[in-house]
Amino acid sequence: MQLAFSAADIAAIVQPVSVKGSTDATVRGIASLNAAQAGDLSFLGNPKYKTEVAASAASIILLPSDYEGDPAPGQQFLFVEKPSLALARLCGRIEQLLWPKPAPGIHATAVIAPGVHVPGTATVGPFCVIEEGAVIGERTHLQAHVFIGRNARIGAECWLMPRAVVATECVLKDRVRLQPGVVVGSDGFGYEFLQGRHEKVPQVGNVVIENDVEIGANTTLDRARFSRTVVGEGTKIDNLVMVGHNVVIGRHCLICAQVGISGSTTLEDYVVLGGQAGVAGHITIGKGVKADGQTGINSDVAPGSFIKGSPFLPYNMEQRINVLRKKLPDLFKRVDALETVMEGLKKSSAP
Amino acid sequence: MQLAFSAADIAAIVQPVSVKGSTDATVRGIASLNAAQAGDLSFLGNPKYKTEVAASAASIILLPSDYEGDPAPGQQFLFVEKPSLALARLCGRIEQLLWPKPAPGIHATAVIAPGVHVPGTATVGPFCVIEEGAVIGERTHLQAHVFIGRNARIGAECWLMPRAVVATECVLKDRVRLQPGVVVGSDGFGYEFLQGRHEKVPQVGNVVIENDVEIGANTTLDRARFSRTVVGEGTKIDNLVMVGHNVVIGRHCLICAQVGISGSTTLEDYVVLGGQAGVAGHITIGKGVKADGQTGINSDVAPGSFIKGSPFLPYNMEQRINVLRKKLPDLFKRVDALETVMEGLKKSSAP
Amino acid sequence: MQLAFSAADIAAIVQPVSVKGSTDATVRGIASLNAAQAGDLSFLGNPKYKTEVAASAASIILLPSDYEGDPAPGQQFLFVEKPSLALARLCGRIEQLLWPKPAPGIHATAVIAPGVHVPGTATVGPFCVIEEGAVIGERTHLQAHVFIGRNARIGAECWLMPRAVVATECVLKDRVRLQPGVVVGSDGFGYEFLQGRHEKVPQVGNVVIENDVEIGANTTLDRARFSRTVVGEGTKIDNLVMVGHNVVIGRHCLICAQVGISGSTTLEDYVVLGGQAGVAGHITIGKGVKADGQTGINSDVAPGSFIKGSPFLPYNMEQRINVLRKKLPDLFKRVDALETVMEGLKKSSAP
Repeated sequence: MQLAFSAADIAAIVQPVSVKGSTDATVRGIASLNAAQAGDLSFLGNPKYKTEVAASAASIILLPSDYEGDPAPGQQFLFVEKPSLALARLCGRIEQLLWPKPAPGIHATAVIAPGVHVPGTATVGPFCVIEEGAVIGERTHLQAHVFIGRNARIGAECWLMPRAVVATECVLKDRVRLQPGVVVGSDGFGYEFLQGRHEKVPQVGNVVIENDVEIGANTTLDRARFSRTVVGEGTKIDNLVMVGHNVVIGRHCLICAQVGISGSTTLEDYVVLGGQAGVAGHITIGKGVKADGQTGINSDVAPGSFIKGSPFLPYNMEQRINVLRKKLPDLFKRVDALETVMEGLKKSSAP
Repeated sequence: MQLAFSAADIAAIVQPVSVKGSTDATVRGIASLNAAQAGDLSFLGNPKYKTEVAASAASIILLPSDYEGDPAPGQQFLFVEKPSLALARLCGRIEQLLWPKPAPGIHATAVIAPGVHVPGTATVGPFCVIEEGAVIGERTHLQAHVFIGRNARIGAECWLMPRAVVATECVLKDRVRLQPGVVVGSDGFGYEFLQGRHEKVPQVGNVVIENDVEIGANTTLDRARFSRTVVGEGTKIDNLVMVGHNVVIGRHCLICAQVGISGSTTLEDYVVLGGQAGVAGHITIGKGVKADGQTGINSDVAPGSFIKGSPFLPYNMEQRINVLRKKLPDLFKRVDALETVMEGLKKSSAP
Repeated sequence: MQLAFSAADIAAIVQPVSVKGSTDATVRGIASLNAAQAGDLSFLGNPKYKTEVAASAASIILLPSDYEGDPAPGQQFLFVEKPSLALARLCGRIEQLLWPKPAPGIHATAVIAPGVHVPGTATVGPFCVIEEGAVIGERTHLQAHVFIGRNARIGAECWLMPRAVVATECVLKDRVRLQPGVVVGSDGFGYEFLQGRHEKVPQVGNVVIENDVEIGANTTLDRARFSRTVVGEGTKIDNLVMVGHNVVIGRHCLICAQVGISGSTTLEDYVVLGGQAGVAGHITIGKGVKADGQTGINSDVAPGSFIKGSPFLPYNMEQRINVLRKKLPDLFKRVDALETVMEGLKKSSAP
């Protein structure tokens, strides 16, 4: 995309507390401090990069208001309360240019079951399928190849990207965003072992996604065996995550890419799971738990814990043990040596 | 979905051995013993929840025939041989209501190559594509956006959910169920390193899925370099699993979510791999092996083993070592102490 | 697929340096040495299978030119410089038969925005969607259900398999191959925590895929927060891989299945990541690094390292520690014994 913002455009968007310096440059890109060229905007989002500000070639830099220093000639500093937030606001503006609100309406190729009401404010893209009994909310946007199963209910202002699937009876509340390829409502993985074969236990519950949830590309959420699989309000789920049947995820959690959560497990609010963490079934992860990437969680976790390792330990303990682990070859040698000396001592102390 | 079963409806489905108590309630939900409300059905599937039966508010409870106790007023106990199985039967009935057998026929939007015969008993949904030479079996159901490649053969009574892909030359036998987004027959990951570049080794084999296999959402199975990648009869594969080229999976295996199986590996019958387990290429996992979640399997595994850890060890050994691992900080201190004492002894025993 | 090659057909394709023996068999399959039957072709790709050649029933065997031995009656040995390469060449020929170059043209059902130019040499399959401003290169092939977002640019001779998604503003250079279900350009996972909620940071960068890259089934690549997520020339990515926003992958890397790479990390050229390896954000993996399967990479890795474990260590060190780890139960016993003896010595050496 071709950005082109003047310094005045940018000030209008980020609304700086104060300004130092000035620039005539048209901003055509955003870059990190050390990668930025003239014509780029940059920002100090993390104090550890403070020393990079002085050498940055960016034409405009967003800085925290307590930053001390002066811009180079032709460079402008914009002081804001929180640079990362100001940047987010700028990106929000760019986003509107990138993905302009689509015109409402139903594409001629969409297949919509008789009796389904699509509000006049909604957008249904090419090759979408909406089955009978489904409900589509106001201002909701279904992009191409989206599938909405029978009796599924999609709330207002949702955005379902290409080939998202919301299967039969599943529910999305308002402002839910599904990235491409998401599957909501695949069958739970449930079988009974009978006479040497795995007999399917029909999975007849659904999935309920609360307000303001976002779900990443190709992530899958299984329907409950019965009752519901739930994702709480404001929770954000990354790509390629697996949410098993009857899982209940609380509000405002962050679930990073490739996490797997086995059936019937509960995550309380504000849980953060690092990438590739794996969670066993039928356990509870307490409020505010943070787990590092690749953590293996096989039992309940107390609220507020910060954990790591597989099976998990408290983060600091796991780190400590990982340091000691590297000293194992040495430890074995030390014990060998002790045994040798001891042997000697035993002999010499023998009567 | 709105369930509405009378006590008599339910008895007709689960066929209890005996009955205690009675209820007028219309059953509108299924719930676990402690979550159930009046109007719900519950069940004792696992003896460890036995004590929850007495306090359960469920209107109907499925119980093993040896359960001793009496229902509350307005509550009914149905004694059955295996409650989880009775529940499965009930869910099976609900499933028929949820997903009624679709009317046979070909949706007007489907694109089917000339010469392809779709039996009159089969259902082909909107926007499906069936390429030339493909074969579709009796009573098979392709939901929306399904892609069947050239010369692929789909057996009888299969159910391919939205946007399943079965690529060129691949074979599904009978009663195979593909959840949404499954890819059968992507290319194997094979390259030759030549003059600093990875040259593609064409992958010209196929994938053969035997009878009664179910495959989870967004799982991918690569076609063989040549010959076949095979999934044996009755095996169940969960979501987001990766099956590499030339892998041969035996019969009645359970492969949990996010497992990865590298090329040319063989799983014998009845293998169970926990979530996120990873399997190296060119090895054999013996009959009945069970691997815990996140296990790393980098060499052959003897039949019947129960394994855990990465790289794997026998389950009990891995558990034992994980306990000792937590004592490493203490062990290092103990060895420090021994060395100090030893130093003292050496000095004092010096002549 | 039904292969049918005469010995002469095969010699014409693999162009042997020399030949021993002869066969009348029509080759109808390719198989490993010990699985091959009469009518199959086999090959010695790895010296460790050398002893299997003599007993192989294959009608034709590709052998390295230094192999010593004679074919059985009715069997032919073809000596070539590199058997695996000769086989690749043969498979390449089979591939042309399997997937003949599709006829150029646009399927009647494709939805292409006004103003988009599709070259006469390109192929656009059924139910493809190409949005406004997108560019499609010469001889590029979009199979069924492919989605190309606004202003996306697809180079020449690309092959996008069923339901690949290339979202708004993303770029594929030439000869890029996307397996089914790939998502290029889903949103990066970026939020600001504000008043108890995760506020979305709009992701307004794109993804750039350089020449000769291949990407596996259902793999997802997130667009940059701003600027670009990059995959370098000749890199090959397997199935179900997650590439986070602003990641830069160098040239000629191999990224095996289910690897996850967190945001803003850089991989230099020729990096090889084994299956299920996980990489933290904001780090650099040096040129030629090789990581074993399931490796956890949480800090920079020096060029040329071979690493293993989570968190990673040098491969040999990790292997050594894994051996010692198994001896921990014994080590604890040895330290117990030392303490007991020491206690005795202390007592006996006490005055």
